[in-house]
Amino acid sequence: MDNLKIEGRNAVLEALRAGRDFESLFVQKELRDGPVNTIIREAGKRGIRVQYVEKERMNRLSETGSHQGVIARIASYQYAEVEDLLKAAADRGEPPFLILLDGIEDPHNLGAIIRTANLAGAHGVIIPKNRAVGLTAVVAKTSAGALNYTGVARVTNLASAIEDLKKQGLWFVCADMNGTVMYDLDLKGPIGLVIGGEGNGVSRLVREKCDMTAAIPMKGNIDSLNASVAAGVLAYEIVRQRR
Amino acid sequence: MDNLKIEGRNAVLEALRAGRDFESLFVQKELRDGPVNTIIREAGKRGIRVQYVEKERMNRLSETGSHQGVIARIASYQYAEVEDLLKAAADRGEPPFLILLDGIEDPHNLGAIIRTANLAGAHGVIIPKNRAVGLTAVVAKTSAGALNYTGVARVTNLASAIEDLKKQGLWFVCADMNGTVMYDLDLKGPIGLVIGGEGNGVSRLVREKCDMTAAIPMKGNIDSLNASVAAGVLAYEIVRQRR
Repeated sequence: MDNLKIEGRNAVLEALRAGRDFESLFVQKELRDGPVNTIIREAGKRGIRVQYVEKERMNRLSETGSHQGVIARIASYQYAEVEDLLKAAADRGEPPFLILLDGIEDPHNLGAIIRTANLAGAHGVIIPKNRAVGLTAVVAKTSAGALNYTGVARVTNLASAIEDLKKQGLWFVCADMNGTVMYDLDLKGPIGLVIGGEGNGVSRLVREKCDMTAAIPMKGNIDSLNASVAAGVLAYEIVRQRR
Repeated sequence: MDNLKIEGRNAVLEALRAGRDFESLFVQKELRDGPVNTIIREAGKRGIRVQYVEKERMNRLSETGSHQGVIARIASYQYAEVEDLLKAAADRGEPPFLILLDGIEDPHNLGAIIRTANLAGAHGVIIPKNRAVGLTAVVAKTSAGALNYTGVARVTNLASAIEDLKKQGLWFVCADMNGTVMYDLDLKGPIGLVIGGEGNGVSRLVREKCDMTAAIPMKGNIDSLNASVAAGVLAYEIVRQRR
């Protein structure tokens, strides 16, 4: 099986608590503060052997450049299927709420959006196979553990995925600054929120498949919010309306 | 005067349009797409000489590692004074809306929050001098030009700055997951929104100065949103209530 390096205290601790499959766990020698002790204790409970290594070796092992003294290698993150995401909604007895990303390239943005999806109660994230970042170690770290709980499905064609999901009753709202102000839209039903990539927003083909276009009110001088912030603001407008 | 390197097409173009003082402008040789042509044209209008350099040299000049073929050196970003931020509110005839950051360390988060502050119509950002990131090239780049328009003041002590601003009629709301759900608070008046750092949230001393504590509803499995996403969600709840 493939494996994946995860780094940082939050990410490793969440992976431990989520019961993921650890192949190795490295802790920096002589590091013994609260969070590190918790990680060592949790690893002990699960019978995972901790390897204590020098700081220099930790730095060499690190891919993210900010390991915080803890690096693990676990069985790699599996992509979910779109059906799994719908099943997650059905299991919770909730109308589906999915977040679709049309070409996010920055792993920090993808990680932050998976984190938002988890906390906003979305049932999963859908990303395209091409011209977008996948589930890397940096994504896992910046998701702060959310990747253990929130499924991410990868599809060949986002526009056809939307077509298929519409047949299952979902409505699609696309983020676009030329759309209707988000407060004036009804975002309560089974919904897919479509967020564009950092450079160009939502592509024309995908936008044309959407039922609604939602704008975040912009009062300033520049063009657009950071993609993960925009996703957060729109996801929480859905949360507010669904209360 | 100090100078500052800014990198990336958005950041450089915004600095050009905002009329900032350019000391030099480097464009990667043989790069001629739409955005790069716009930058060259805008520079021409303002009489700024473009220096065309090889990709290798661009990579050496770059501090952010993602210059997109455009790097400039401009007179450095000046910190605003807290009074300037209040004046910006008065000039617009709006009740003050400030964002205070208690220990943000990641320059990407600071940049994204300045970007949010600009678009949400906040009148400025206040950061502490110590244990927090200041206005670096990465912050300028991730602010996508917002730093040219939205003032950032730096104070020695955030708790005393809050005390002073309270005397001028501001109310302070602090982001904390144990607070009141944000929809149930009145966030319409002159307000300072306090966001904590990535690791530990808002410090006790600062939290004790706040009038209200606002929670973003959390439905998921993990602890907290990314700091810049949380700032965005709360800032836009203020926008919504002020409409």
